[in-house]
Amino acid sequence: MNAPRSGRDEFRGPKVVAFGGGHGLSVSLTALRRLTDQLTAVVTVADDGGSSGRLRDEFGCLPPGDLRMALAALCSDDHVGRTWARVLQSRFGGDGNLAGHAIGNLLIAGLWQQLDDPVAGLDMVGDLLRTRGRVLPMSSVPLEIEADVIGLDPVAPDELATLRGQATVAKTRSTVQSVRLIPPSPPARPEAVEAVMAADSIVLGPGSWFTSVIPHLLVPDLAEAIVTTGAKRILVLNLAPSDETDGFSASRHIELLAEHAPRLTLDVVVADKGFASTDPHLEAYVASLGARLLSADVAMRDGSPRHDPNRLAAVLSEVLETATGPTSR
Amino acid sequence: MNAPRSGRDEFRGPKVVAFGGGHGLSVSLTALRRLTDQLTAVVTVADDGGSSGRLRDEFGCLPPGDLRMALAALCSDDHVGRTWARVLQSRFGGDGNLAGHAIGNLLIAGLWQQLDDPVAGLDMVGDLLRTRGRVLPMSSVPLEIEADVIGLDPVAPDELATLRGQATVAKTRSTVQSVRLIPPSPPARPEAVEAVMAADSIVLGPGSWFTSVIPHLLVPDLAEAIVTTGAKRILVLNLAPSDETDGFSASRHIELLAEHAPRLTLDVVVADKGFASTDPHLEAYVASLGARLLSADVAMRDGSPRHDPNRLAAVLSEVLETATGPTSR
Repeated sequence: MNAPRSGRDEFRGPKVVAFGGGHGLSVSLTALRRLTDQLTAVVTVADDGGSSGRLRDEFGCLPPGDLRMALAALCSDDHVGRTWARVLQSRFGGDGNLAGHAIGNLLIAGLWQQLDDPVAGLDMVGDLLRTRGRVLPMSSVPLEIEADVIGLDPVAPDELATLRGQATVAKTRSTVQSVRLIPPSPPARPEAVEAVMAADSIVLGPGSWFTSVIPHLLVPDLAEAIVTTGAKRILVLNLAPSDETDGFSASRHIELLAEHAPRLTLDVVVADKGFASTDPHLEAYVASLGARLLSADVAMRDGSPRHDPNRLAAVLSEVLETATGPTSR
Repeated sequence: MNAPRSGRDEFRGPKVVAFGGGHGLSVSLTALRRLTDQLTAVVTVADDGGSSGRLRDEFGCLPPGDLRMALAALCSDDHVGRTWARVLQSRFGGDGNLAGHAIGNLLIAGLWQQLDDPVAGLDMVGDLLRTRGRVLPMSSVPLEIEADVIGLDPVAPDELATLRGQATVAKTRSTVQSVRLIPPSPPARPEAVEAVMAADSIVLGPGSWFTSVIPHLLVPDLAEAIVTTGAKRILVLNLAPSDETDGFSASRHIELLAEHAPRLTLDVVVADKGFASTDPHLEAYVASLGARLLSADVAMRDGSPRHDPNRLAAVLSEVLETATGPTSR
């Protein structure tokens, strides 16, 4: 875990590890940072699209995009932190060689060229953004995601096919059966394992189910830590199925985790009331796993298909059994 | 001038403005930062080569490279400042779209896309590097350098020709007669003019004579400030002629400044003993201008064709009439 910074307020809170990638992790971090300073984000490193994909192709480095987004979500509320976060999140315009690259991705990739350790580079950016908490890759090895799907070919709708690449899998309209990582059984970042073992609570999801949530369970040492830690295990379901889980019930989302990590147990499942109401078996299914279902309004009030960080923070505060810390607004 | 930062040591020193670009300015800043905290670098913005040239072509922004080098030269001696300086000075490897770009150039160009004011972006990088002093572009307008030369065409060695572009002019082996800026009479950065008017001393050179030293005299408001300020005017000559001034005596170097800025007067000329010894007229010429010649060993002891920052600091300390401040090594 990162050391507390001097000269900051003294609020600490429980030790929490949040798993995910992309926008889903951004939301859970934005909620959790209001509840604790002792927050570690563990981030998937299988992105192969956009600016991250281009940097990965050019340098063979980890894809920086999800890590950058997590750092930005943890940036300090002060002017300096916010300004740097805005800059690092922004992208070059135009149609030249740099167009579309997030500035933070270039900075992180540059740091990685200079420093031996990818985590050292992320910690430097964390200091720049004055983050509350730390951002770690789930593995130091850039990964690919491969999925077994059915329904890819309309002519042979029952045929099993293989899709490769996070960007492709996340957007498929065929039915995903399972995912695996390439290379298989990648090494976990030891700091991530340590954070999980030391945590009071760990939070899985929300996020792209097959490409941001399940991959953490496919890194053996990380999965072992998730299964054996004394921390409370919290699952935050998505608000609704996405492309890759189209037609899946809430219960089926949970079942998929068990299929990829049979020894996983859960303590709390947080579901949006709207999604929960579409699955009459959800409460019984969650209870059969020994977990507690927390069904609440956690979507944005304006109807946009995203979690409201304030509402999610309110629910998670109850789950973490902690008073709400200093909020940012 | 930038405000003093809290929590830093209390050393201030005289107010000094250093003009130049590239490696020459790096050397004068490295020397001057040992003598004062109240240091402003005013930097040429006519570079059209390398990483800077590519960014300029892609975004129409100021060329960031010379500004980045000046910032790195002013970075703090602490671990954080030095590490960031090393990273921002480093370049992407490989042979892809990013190869050769200095990481700091990309960061500065990215900041400029997000902030209204190029100086605000430079100040942010200055804070990141914890610089002693401030770095300003001489103009907010990207400039080009055009030179009248003779001897370009061996068949017609006396014919006047025109060369365009800093990278081209700096490397020409033909004889440069004069340079001008395009667009002509660009606006000066007001902060640079203010710094010159408030300075105790201003330092011109060393550096590429036609492309890093003389251009400052071609920005009308900046030239007016240089001519009228109550500050001591110090010229640091190069150790020897370079490509663009091949065959020119030390006196001829000084004369070139007067040809481009007839009202310029000087108080002190710092020359390396080696270069001074090749020009029997130098002492008399400098005296005829009302200036004092300071001839000293200022080259690297190992014979490499660069100023030794420690030796230069020792000489400039005498000129600035200030005790040497806390040194960095």
